[in-house]
Amino acid sequence: MRPHVVVNVAMSADGKISTRERRQVKISGREDFFRVDRLKAASDAVMVGIGTVLADDPSLTVKSDELKRERRAQGRDEHPVRVVVDSTARIPLTASVLTRGEGKRVVAVSRRADPAKVAAIKKVATVVVAGEDEVDIAGLLIELGAIGVQQLMVEGGGTLIASLFSAGVVDEIYTFVGNIIIGGKDAPTPADGSGFMSEGEFSRLTLLEVTRMGDGVLLHWKVGTGS
Amino acid sequence: MRPHVVVNVAMSADGKISTRERRQVKISGREDFFRVDRLKAASDAVMVGIGTVLADDPSLTVKSDELKRERRAQGRDEHPVRVVVDSTARIPLTASVLTRGEGKRVVAVSRRADPAKVAAIKKVATVVVAGEDEVDIAGLLIELGAIGVQQLMVEGGGTLIASLFSAGVVDEIYTFVGNIIIGGKDAPTPADGSGFMSEGEFSRLTLLEVTRMGDGVLLHWKVGTGS
Repeated sequence: MRPHVVVNVAMSADGKISTRERRQVKISGREDFFRVDRLKAASDAVMVGIGTVLADDPSLTVKSDELKRERRAQGRDEHPVRVVVDSTARIPLTASVLTRGEGKRVVAVSRRADPAKVAAIKKVATVVVAGEDEVDIAGLLIELGAIGVQQLMVEGGGTLIASLFSAGVVDEIYTFVGNIIIGGKDAPTPADGSGFMSEGEFSRLTLLEVTRMGDGVLLHWKVGTGS
Repeated sequence: MRPHVVVNVAMSADGKISTRERRQVKISGREDFFRVDRLKAASDAVMVGIGTVLADDPSLTVKSDELKRERRAQGRDEHPVRVVVDSTARIPLTASVLTRGEGKRVVAVSRRADPAKVAAIKKVATVVVAGEDEVDIAGLLIELGAIGVQQLMVEGGGTLIASLFSAGVVDEIYTFVGNIIIGGKDAPTPADGSGFMSEGEFSRLTLLEVTRMGDGVLLHWKVGTGS
């Protein structure tokens, strides 16, 4: 069974997650930072795409000492399983997600990934091979379910999130909308990829909650309409 | 003096205003439709970019009979002045914005627009020539102020809105966030153009009001921070 998938993304008021040069941007504030940390600590795994690893080099660790203690008290690793979707095994072995903090790592590659690079990654992470040219998202989620991941948090970027929506596997999405305009037709957005073409294809959401937070607003959607 | 500029835009939960093929998409519902009509009726002019004219062929007229009556009772034209920003004079003379409903039209072009086409447009609209290669937005706004436009509503698209933010002339922005995911790295967003590159350049907003409306949420921002 696949995990429950929760996407978390912060965007500007004009729908951008960073500048066109993929420069990391502070969109939300302190209050949202703690919310994201709690969501991460409550998840069994946290996933990003390789674009985000290369642009931002996130560690994807839980930041709060208290939340780390709580996880340990529950007999869990301090950090959730960190999962990188990386079809062609481009991840640097020095990436923070592979080197910082204890806990399991999963790197998901496709069958066209270079075997020598895959062998090197296997020394520091569990490698899941799924899909021919691109990582087969549905297959990967089944594998994550099999190793005990019940809740998966997805931190971006836009290409991965678009793949998850295309695969129809997103259950919830949080979008923090921040008080800036970034602009740019080539700037990354919460869902990039090729996109849906017509009304019949769009993912439909239900707005669960609206919360003013700091200088912006947090929108919590579930995927699907009706109860 | 330039008019007070209010941008109005509806975007999907992932920050898109249409599909990558610029197919017009129903993002908001009936309640928001009436709000937009009221905002239009309360404005002296409504502006769009030529991309929106070519993609959607909007008439930009006030739709409600009651609002039209109110405008007439105030001694105003039934519809606000309709303004198209069209640097190279690409507007078809059959465009709805030029042919449907009574009232003034302004087509803003740059000096590189074809003189023959400009002469043809002059038969059905006031032509403002401002800027060498692209319409000079600040100059155009001064011209609009001079003909009595005190409140200007901007209906898009993303290229025009980005130009307005770059020119620093936006006072307020309404973003309706709808309950769909459209996706697509090439899909239009509320602010396209080249975009801002760094924190210091971003337009900063203050969130004035958050209103759940239909299946989505309306965010009303003023541009600038502090009171």
